[in-house]
Amino acid sequence: MKFFYGPKTCALASRIALEEAGASYEPVRVDFASGEQTKPAYLAVNPKGRVPALVTDRGVLTENVAILAFVAQSHPEKKLAPLADPFAFAEMQAFNSYLASTVHVNHAHKHRGARWATEESSFLDMRRKVPETMAASFRLIETEFFRGPWVMGEAYSVADAYLFTVTRWLEGDGVDVAQFPRVADHMKRMGERPAVQAALAGE
Amino acid sequence: MKFFYGPKTCALASRIALEEAGASYEPVRVDFASGEQTKPAYLAVNPKGRVPALVTDRGVLTENVAILAFVAQSHPEKKLAPLADPFAFAEMQAFNSYLASTVHVNHAHKHRGARWATEESSFLDMRRKVPETMAASFRLIETEFFRGPWVMGEAYSVADAYLFTVTRWLEGDGVDVAQFPRVADHMKRMGERPAVQAALAGE
Ligand SMILES: N[C@@H](CCC(=O)N[C@@H](CS)C(=O)NCC(=O)O)C(=O)O
Ligand SMILES: N[C@@H](CCC(=O)N[C@@H](CS)C(=O)NCC(=O)O)C(=O)O
Repeated sequence: MKFFYGPKTCALASRIALEEAGASYEPVRVDFASGEQTKPAYLAVNPKGRVPALVTDRGVLTENVAILAFVAQSHPEKKLAPLADPFAFAEMQAFNSYLASTVHVNHAHKHRGARWATEESSFLDMRRKVPETMAASFRLIETEFFRGPWVMGEAYSVADAYLFTVTRWLEGDGVDVAQFPRVADHMKRMGERPAVQAALAGE
Repeated sequence: MKFFYGPKTCALASRIALEEAGASYEPVRVDFASGEQTKPAYLAVNPKGRVPALVTDRGVLTENVAILAFVAQSHPEKKLAPLADPFAFAEMQAFNSYLASTVHVNHAHKHRGARWATEESSFLDMRRKVPETMAASFRLIETEFFRGPWVMGEAYSVADAYLFTVTRWLEGDGVDVAQFPRVADHMKRMGERPAVQAALAGE
């Protein structure tokens, strides 16, 4: 498999899952500085012009929510998701979908305002609000969604890889993770996992 | 099960899936006009203050991406997703996650700009761009992702319910669906399904 990523992007979530699964994959770095993700060669891989993209012998998968579940389902022996219980699986997917559709989107308003607006004044306005929206999302995660010691409770899952990835953005977004002690502790424990260290070293 | 929804919202996707599955559920309308979704009684159901929310005897599920997969997985005999094939399932989840994290988010910039900015000028700027972002997303769906006759190809799936729901927003977003003949034909055929008619009548 080929795994297309950019350093410090959301692709880290899927990469940690691949490492946890012991999957063999070839990482391919997409150079955002030169806009490689918008050029025809990369659009032929992922017409959305985004990372991550996982190229398999059956075709290309995009979207962290889908890749994370795929890695878990295709390596059942690694127990990276509650595969035998549709309700528990849905709870995990709901957590991941919240990260993708709300928390990641909040964060993207810092540097990607041009996706949704045209004026420089709007970009500045959006950027100013990011600390507030990210803190509000993490307040909910800390108090309502995070079970501990892992996101879904006693069992580690791919949701932990995704939460870790998004938590790492907080500092740059002007939010002190220390406000969220359970999430802060999670980030620290995640950093000790060999799979996480391998994924980070690979970037 | 109780199903919390608002008319014309994204909750329609999950409701269509419930109807297709023949699930028994009690619909509960959340009154957006009076801001019921932001009041304590509803926040006790879904602290995010959004619909849909599906209350089951094991707890509450949120997020269309999660509820759609849950309905499919918990009614396997209805064949609402490629459940036995992790890769095909991931392709469906990628489609649904694109709708949730990109297309729905584009649409939300029309009336929900206050989520991400503060100034009236920014809201107007965001609103002006919605026809462009929605058209760009549907161009990709039409040419790249939609297989036909259903989203994932020969087999109907919960992705069809979600696509139908978001396609219905195009007119209000200033985009003529006729530009996308395959999607337009899909919308028409979806409207003929009894489950879709029941879900719409229920709103
Ligand atoms: N919903 C997608 C989002 C993917 C996404 O937006 N990736 C960002 C990096 S975090 C990207 O590729 N941005 C490039 C660009 O906007 O040009 C997912 O979760 O995979
Ligand atoms: N990612 C969520 C989005 C849910 C969502 O944003 N729902 C909208 C209706 S389409 C809502 O409840 N909005 C109420 C508000 O913003 O106050 C999902 O797919 O379920």
